[in-house]
Formats: sequence, C-alpha cells, structure tokens
Amino acid sequence: MKDFSDLKVVNIGLESFAQDLVKQGVPAIQVKWSPPAAVPSAALDRITASQDVIDIANRKVIDIIQAGAPVLLGLDIALKVIPGMHSKLILHAGPPITWERMCGPMRGAIMGALIYEGLAPDADAAEALAASGEIEYSPCHEHNAVGPMAGIISASMPVFIVQNESSGNYAYCTQNEGLGKVLRYGAFSPEVVSKLKWMQDSLYPILDKAIRSLGKIDLKSLIAQALHMGDEVHNRNRAGTSLLIRQLAPAILRTSDSMEESAKALEFINGNDHFFLNLSMPAAKCILDAAAGIEHSSILTCMARNGTDFGIRLSGTGNEWFTGKALVPDALYFPGYTKDDANPDIGDSAITESVGWGGFAIAAAPAIVQFVGGNAADALSYTQQMYEISASEHQNYQIPALDFRGTPLGIDVVKVINNNLTPFIDTGVAHKNPGIGQVGAGVVSAPIEPFIKAFEKFAHIL
Amino acid sequence: MKDFSDLKVVNIGLESFAQDLVKQGVPAIQVKWSPPAAVPSAALDRITASQDVIDIANRKVIDIIQAGAPVLLGLDIALKVIPGMHSKLILHAGPPITWERMCGPMRGAIMGALIYEGLAPDADAAEALAASGEIEYSPCHEHNAVGPMAGIISASMPVFIVQNESSGNYAYCTQNEGLGKVLRYGAFSPEVVSKLKWMQDSLYPILDKAIRSLGKIDLKSLIAQALHMGDEVHNRNRAGTSLLIRQLAPAILRTSDSMEESAKALEFINGNDHFFLNLSMPAAKCILDAAAGIEHSSILTCMARNGTDFGIRLSGTGNEWFTGKALVPDALYFPGYTKDDANPDIGDSAITESVGWGGFAIAAAPAIVQFVGGNAADALSYTQQMYEISASEHQNYQIPALDFRGTPLGIDVVKVINNNLTPFIDTGVAHKNPGIGQVGAGVVSAPIEPFIKAFEKFAHIL
Repeated sequence: MKDFSDLKVVNIGLESFAQDLVKQGVPAIQVKWSPPAAVPSAALDRITASQDVIDIANRKVIDIIQAGAPVLLGLDIALKVIPGMHSKLILHAGPPITWERMCGPMRGAIMGALIYEGLAPDADAAEALAASGEIEYSPCHEHNAVGPMAGIISASMPVFIVQNESSGNYAYCTQNEGLGKVLRYGAFSPEVVSKLKWMQDSLYPILDKAIRSLGKIDLKSLIAQALHMGDEVHNRNRAGTSLLIRQLAPAILRTSDSMEESAKALEFINGNDHFFLNLSMPAAKCILDAAAGIEHSSILTCMARNGTDFGIRLSGTGNEWFTGKALVPDALYFPGYTKDDANPDIGDSAITESVGWGGFAIAAAPAIVQFVGGNAADALSYTQQMYEISASEHQNYQIPALDFRGTPLGIDVVKVINNNLTPFIDTGVAHKNPGIGQVGAGVVSAPIEPFIKAFEKFAHIL
Repeated sequence: MKDFSDLKVVNIGLESFAQDLVKQGVPAIQVKWSPPAAVPSAALDRITASQDVIDIANRKVIDIIQAGAPVLLGLDIALKVIPGMHSKLILHAGPPITWERMCGPMRGAIMGALIYEGLAPDADAAEALAASGEIEYSPCHEHNAVGPMAGIISASMPVFIVQNESSGNYAYCTQNEGLGKVLRYGAFSPEVVSKLKWMQDSLYPILDKAIRSLGKIDLKSLIAQALHMGDEVHNRNRAGTSLLIRQLAPAILRTSDSMEESAKALEFINGNDHFFLNLSMPAAKCILDAAAGIEHSSILTCMARNGTDFGIRLSGTGNEWFTGKALVPDALYFPGYTKDDANPDIGDSAITESVGWGGFAIAAAPAIVQFVGGNAADALSYTQQMYEISASEHQNYQIPALDFRGTPLGIDVVKVINNNLTPFIDTGVAHKNPGIGQVGAGVVSAPIEPFIKAFEKFAHIL
C-alpha cells in the first residue's frame, strides 16, 4: 500500500496555528520546535563564535567513546582496588552531598553499610555514626566507580573490575543484589545485610575465579547483543544477564570448589534479571571516563543523581559538577504505593544514558515504555528525540527497530540548550523513607538546570 | 509532528492504474488485492455455504492451540519412546517419500544415520543399504516427532520429550548438532558421526538428568520470552538458547558426575545459538497435534518439506497430506555458494510457522530480514500479511514491535485461497548434493499447490 501526502503548510512552533489551518481545510504539518533554554545571550554568542573549535574537540571525544572497549576482568574487595578507598569512607551515587542533605534511601543504605562493615551494631547506632562526622562521604564517580540507586560502596564490598581496553582505565561496581529488600533502595534490615555477607563470602569468590579462568569477558559484545535482544541495559537486563550466564556457567563448573554453592550462585543470578546492570554501568563509566577532560568539548561524561541533586559533568569542564533539583519519575508503582511515596530520581545508573543506552536506546526495549502506559511508537519517538541532542551515532551498539541504526553517542550540552530538550532516563524508584526499598520503575526527563549551569560555565571558559 | 494525507482515489488491484493516476497529479492509494487462487467455483461455493459450520470448528481449533502448554520433561532414546520406532526405520522430514525421490541432503543424512547405527561401515555400503528396500522410511510427523532440515531420526538417537500439558500428548525431537558439518544438512563424514556419538554418550545423559531434576522446563514461557528478545524461534534462537542455559546450568551442577564433561556440554550449547530450535519445534508440534482431526476445521496442523515436496495437513482432513513442489529459498549464501547449489526448501521446522512463530513472527526478529536485504519495516509487513491468512491471534506469544500484539494463530486454508497469499517461512538452506551441508539461510513463501489441493478436498468432504 502506498500513501500519498499532499502537504501544503509547514508550521513551526505554536501548534494551535496549524490546528486553525486544519479546521479551515488547509493541510498543514506541525514541526516540534522550542526556543532555546534560558541562557544568557552572551553565552550563546560565545558558543556560536567558537563552534569550529568545539566541533574539533567533540570529534576527539566521539572517537574515544566510539573506541571504548569494556571488558570484565574479575572482582576484588573495594578497599584493595578502588583508588582512595578506606575503612571510614562511604562512596555514594550522584554528585557530592553531605549527610544532612541526603535523601531517605541514601541514608538507609549508608546505615546498612555501616552495620555490614561492623562499624555499628544496629540502625540507631548506625544513624548516629553516619551523622557524627567520623564517616567520610564521596561520590562513586570521583573514585572510578558507579553504583545503582543509593550507590553505596563500603570498604569490604566486593566489586567488579571492568577495564576499557582502548584507554587502559578501570571502573568498579558492586554485585547486583536482586529485587525486594536491598541496600541500594535504602533497606537495611538483617536479611539485607546477611545477603550482602553471602555475596561477599560465596558469590564473589565463585564469580572471580570463573571470570579469571576465562581471562576476560567482552562486555562490548554482550551489550551490543543485548540491545538486539530487547534490553536497553538500564531498566531491562534480561538478555545481558542471560548472555553472561552462558559464558560464566562452564567456567564456574571448571573452577568451583563446591558444586552446591556454585549452583546457588547461578540460581541467584538466574533469579535476578538486573544482575547485568552492575556490569553495563561500569562499562559505560570506563568508556566515558576515557573521554573526560578534552578541552573545548561540550559533550557530557556523566549524569548522576544522589536522590536530592541531579548532577552532570562535561568533558570540557573536567571534574566540575553542575547540579539541579532531582525530579520524581513517572512510574508504575507497586501495589500499595503512589507517587507520594517516591523519592526523587537517584543513582549512578544514568551513566548508561550518558553513553547512549538506557532511555536513549529505549526503542530497543519497548516493554519499558509499556510500563508507564506508552507503546512501541513512543519508544521509537523517545530514542529519535535523543538523536537531536547527541553528537553522533555509535557504530557497534544498534537498535533493531530503527533498522539497526547506531545508538545516540555523546550528549552535547549545546544541543540540549538549543533544543531545550533534556535527556530521557529509565529508572527504578525508591521509597523516600529509609529502610523500605523499591516502590516502582519508570522514566524521567533530566532537569534543565544543570545543563544551563554547565553551558554557562563552558561558554565562560571557551 | 502530524501528517495530513489528502487521499482522493482508492485503487484496488493492478498497481499500474494507480501509478498512472499519480503521474497525472491525482493522489491515489494502492490496496494490495489479488483474485482468489485458482480453485473450482463449486468448491468456493461449498465453502461459502458452510462458513458457519467451519467457523464453529475453527473456534474449537483456535481454543486448543491457544491452550497449548508445551513442557520439556527429559530425553530418552528414540527406540524406547517414539511410537512405532524400530531398528530398521528411519524417520525423515516432510511428507512421505521414497528413497528414489529423495533429495541429496536427505539421502546424505540417511547414509550418515545408517553408519551411526552401525548398519553400514561406510558411505557406499550405506547408500546401497538405503536403496535396498531393507530400510523403512516414514515421516517424523507420523510418529509424534519433528526434525529440522533432513529431519533424520534413527533408533539409537536420543530425543527430547516434550509434552503438551493441556492435552497430554507428546512430541519428540533430536538434540541440535550446531552448525558446520552436520547430519541434518546432509553431511555424513566421520566427524559428523562422531559428534552424534558424543551427543548420545555424554550430552544426552547430562541434559536428561538435569531436566528431570527440575521436574520440567516450561517451554511456553521460554518461547514467549524469546519472542520479546529478538527471536522468532525458527531461524533465530539466541534468546531461547540463552534462557534454556540459565535454567539448565544450576541443575547440571547439582546432578553431574563429571564436571569436565558437564562444562563441555554447556560450552557446546553456548556455542550453538540454534540449540533451542530443537525445542521450539516439538513445542509447536505437540500444540498442533492436539488440534488435529476436528471435523470441518479449515486450519492447518502442519507444514513440512522433505526437500522434494512441500506438504500440509488440515485439522478437518485428518492425517492426509496435500503436497506440491518444494521451492528454492531466497537466501544469503555462504562464500563460494550460489542459489544454483541450493536444495529446495527442506525440513519440519515450518512447524514453527504453522503455529504462528518463525516467518509469521518475523517482526519480532528483524535481524533475519536483514539477511536477505530487507529492513525492519519489511519484517513488520511480512508479519502483518500473515494475520490476513490466520484465524486469530495468540494471547501469550507477543511481538514487541507491534505493540505486543499476539502472534498470528491458526493458518486458515480458506483465507490462504481467498487472499491467494501463502505462508512466509524462514529457513536454512542445504546444498543439493549429499555430504556437503549448509550453504545459506533465508526466506521462502510456501507454494500454492498444496493449499489448492487441501481446499478442494476440504470442500469436497464438507
């Protein structure tokens, strides 16, 4: 069937004008267009005048991201491998934040971590210690690490070791705990802590031995495959988890000391479709860290939320954070919960969007849009919008439903401002109070504020 | 963005008429339409007059197919479980055929099976024995079994035992051999036979023990998930194979006698993304066998090819085969091969299309269309066409890219004739000579001839 359109008027801007035309029988086409976000015109002018320099810098960043080759090398204890880690340091998701300003689920997760570390016997003691000034807090992102949701990493926790083979740098992330009562959503009951202990005593050595026996696991290949299999490797990781198990299982058989413990480890991973998230995140992190600090580049190297603030960093502005208020996601809430229970957006998992997966690749995972009442066409549309704020397209990560078009590559703050369109992010939703856990999953658009601040600073130092 | 079409002419039939209008500046829309296939008008009249009776019968068949609940129970040796199996019987793909009319790859696979069974020492002796009259040949389909490509099952081969829990009936299929030199594509060299021996001596007992320790594996769930993960469970089975490994791996750990043999078994499955095909096929077979023999139903219970003939069976005409010449698929050929090397369409794997997967669900697996130069829109279009010849839509097997619309359910021979549109089938392509193997993979439309014959017989006995 062919479809002939007889288009007479192209309308840009106010949709009501097109609607009026249509009422009068004149065919019209509506083009989505918004004025740039509210930034000083001097900053806009500086950027425009330097666009050639920016383009050259961005080309460098694009090439570095394109070349990123994350591999999983094994696991080790955080204290031994994470730069700057010490026994009184707690790493957390998002930009820097003090205990006083932390949201409920982050506080809950820190209390759980202090109990897990043996630094506090119970929740009250943990809360007192956490607030005492004895504990140092620092973003995962400032220690080559990332963490989903509260993103808490303490000294004794085992972490995956992921390396970007093209640049040699490393990224670290804990093992995913599964769903239900888990630390990353702010729960800290004895069952939460005892699961973390089992992950340290049993799961970690089994996985480490298996992975080291294989030499490495190619995460670039697994993620590229997962995007062909309905995952966007943020809120949907069923394919990634499955493909990981395929590689791990024979190696676990060959290296295990206890068949029963190994079977339990495999069952745990099989029971947790999000297990692969804690590998897609450090994969994204080490790809983007390699692209940080390129002078004059307007491309983001991370987006991260601590549940209070939403923060971003640009390649051209180095390690500086630009923050704004974290928003509450649109979500499908679990029975008994509503948006009133929800904590604002939290976690380092937006590192997946930062590299072009997650919400940017949601066309590869329409099931996620279904969650919040959308359909497959909406999923295509979200991804297509994200190309508008991206510098390029990846050659290896592809979206089947868009004829295997490459995923958006390199979020360009200039394009975000010019289009007044912020990144689209898939996410889990934590209860706003400590000790409860997950209440839903959904989607959220990043706030514009951090992008305006970053744009202004970037223009200023050009 | 909105899109207003100003359509003036709807043209049905010859596309050139619409093209002429367009050339003259008159907007026109072309509706695909073909006259019914060439069947006697008396048959058409009989069907029209009995449509109410047919609809009631088809409703029964739809309900049976909808309720189908295939589970994997374990494995056993063909001789012990396949009805009618004996040491001089060879089961083959497709409708009945004599040795004289068999194509090259089927002959090659039979020669390999006779060597594997110890009935012949070498290829020459096997060929002589195969042609001697001492060996009995019968379709897998007539023994509750199915086989991909040549589909050869001999007495000593281990077979998966799949049960349709809603009807209690069973279906059987061999273990998938992987790619390269394999029996099902007509290869019969010593390496082919020795791999079959390893599958009998090592792979089979490991899998059987693991599956039986689990009680059962729910194939309905695995197939529904795989369709959400880029598989159509005919030519693409990466997700199905991955999900199967996830379930099997812990059970293998718990039941294995030899870790090294078990690791090899898991590596073999991990190295063969088609492993799950030999489970999706008996799953489809047991679902459709339960729907056979419903008087007055015009719905197909199988399509199958022996490499010479393409055969179908209808529910309302029981076990009778209606056949036509098998066609050569459009394919992507391996380096060094062309369509001239290709054998006509072969294998029982079209049982997946018969139940609404494979080519009918190709919108779930656009990577397959890419093989033969198509794109994601083509994949959607192929599936959408298949709804035109199907009686209903499945509630559990869904296609994400069509907003999780159910897969087409129940191929209706009346609709095939009225639309003059035959089923679309994904397939592997075998070399036409025995002993060589696979030369490509592609797609093919079923020939109309078997459908015309079935329609006429169905009308005759109404």
